[in-house]
Amino acid sequence: MLRHNHLNHRNGSYLPRPCVSLRTTASGRSFTLSIRSSSSLSAIVINGKAEGKKIRDDIKTEVSRMKESIGVVPEDSSEEEVLRSVSGFNDDPCVHGILVQLPLPSNMNELNILNAVSIEKDVDGFHPLNIGRLAMRGGKPLFVPCTPKGCIELLRRYNIGIKGKRAVVIGRSNIVGMPAALLLQREDATVSIIHSKTENPEEITREADILISAAGQPNMVRGSWIKPGAVVIDVGTKRVEDSSAPCGFRLVGDVCYEEACKVASAISLFLVV
Amino acid sequence: MLRHNHLNHRNGSYLPRPCVSLRTTASGRSFTLSIRSSSSLSAIVINGKAEGKKIRDDIKTEVSRMKESIGVVPEDSSEEEVLRSVSGFNDDPCVHGILVQLPLPSNMNELNILNAVSIEKDVDGFHPLNIGRLAMRGGKPLFVPCTPKGCIELLRRYNIGIKGKRAVVIGRSNIVGMPAALLLQREDATVSIIHSKTENPEEITREADILISAAGQPNMVRGSWIKPGAVVIDVGTKRVEDSSAPCGFRLVGDVCYEEACKVASAISLFLVV
Repeated sequence: MLRHNHLNHRNGSYLPRPCVSLRTTASGRSFTLSIRSSSSLSAIVINGKAEGKKIRDDIKTEVSRMKESIGVVPEDSSEEEVLRSVSGFNDDPCVHGILVQLPLPSNMNELNILNAVSIEKDVDGFHPLNIGRLAMRGGKPLFVPCTPKGCIELLRRYNIGIKGKRAVVIGRSNIVGMPAALLLQREDATVSIIHSKTENPEEITREADILISAAGQPNMVRGSWIKPGAVVIDVGTKRVEDSSAPCGFRLVGDVCYEEACKVASAISLFLVV
Repeated sequence: MLRHNHLNHRNGSYLPRPCVSLRTTASGRSFTLSIRSSSSLSAIVINGKAEGKKIRDDIKTEVSRMKESIGVVPEDSSEEEVLRSVSGFNDDPCVHGILVQLPLPSNMNELNILNAVSIEKDVDGFHPLNIGRLAMRGGKPLFVPCTPKGCIELLRRYNIGIKGKRAVVIGRSNIVGMPAALLLQREDATVSIIHSKTENPEEITREADILISAAGQPNMVRGSWIKPGAVVIDVGTKRVEDSSAPCGFRLVGDVCYEEACKVASAISLFLVV
């Protein structure tokens, strides 16, 4: 299942761009960017489904090939067995990148396994050495986590300035929230990080010129949380039961789009194809 | 020269504690904590000079001993020579900790030399692997940078809650600002980081329940920047020419103490002994 983010503009303050597809990592997670303007009746709305299907099919073929040539770590493996496999992939010159699909089963320590990935093959950028380099001024990470990198790319491609802006990140996960905050800071934003212990998230979110939400709390961010004219990127995902969906659930974002799109100057459109 | 931080309370909202000296690293940087209450005429003001002299003398002896037994890297060494020395200290089982005194001469790349320190001996906690572990949820740094750690210890010893509080850090240096922000976040504060590109530092600083300033901008933080009742820790230091001082300069903090102490509920007292 691919998730697409469309950046939707309420006004013409940013340059419209043609639809662009970013395939940020081998995981196949992708962003499709498009413009829709409420002031235009002939708004361009790109249906990303066809493109999503193509990417999905490509990945399917590639994964089948890799399964055959490299092998599979069985689902019921112990932490030790997974660590042994990671070590083998580290040493194998035919393997150029290793991506640990998270979350892991509860019998495994996530950090132990992430730490075991050779930094030269850590395409997810989750190795603490990569994260440390991301956090440090002048530090040069070999890889940068894909979703946060996609958020920054989304802003760049829409010519949305980051330097000096107030940026708020909701969520501090190792995978999205924390590296997103570090990346925004590298771009000279003034960053605040909101999390489950924050006492007044609504008030702080309202200060943001740029808001990236990665909490996994369906529709938590209401229109009243958003400063008029802010740019909103929603990368939260949560499965919500939906009997009408073929798989029995649908993915829902953090931002209540219907409310937020009336306040934000640009907002990502949450689509699952 | 030792710098002492006294935490000075305007009201009785926190438990008074006896004077405590924290020697956070082998660098000899220390904090002396004391209480002074404006509502009490018999306020306890601890003169840390005697204690400072004792620590300085102890370190002097220890440094002389180390110079003799381990040797000295000459001041005019090249980056390569310093890297060779660091490598030798890494391999020497008699050396238990390595601290690179910053800033380095301009002919050396700071990150190259910090990266060369074995993580097991990185007592400053500046190695990117240590910083990455500090940034990651569940990450376990082997060492934590001393000044930020001292700030958290100062808050703890005065029973100042951090969890859920709005914390603002001024400055994003690898040595103080950035790790201070990471540590505050680990303590569940809601953290904002202000830096030279921040457009409205005064406004953001005024949101802080806890303010740690590490910018090196003498007296930048005025009384009007501080939320009434906030806790203020000033770890900024800048040499300012002073012909009346024996060495021709004095160290000045970021916070204009005379103004700030009238607004804050607790504030560190900047003393150089």
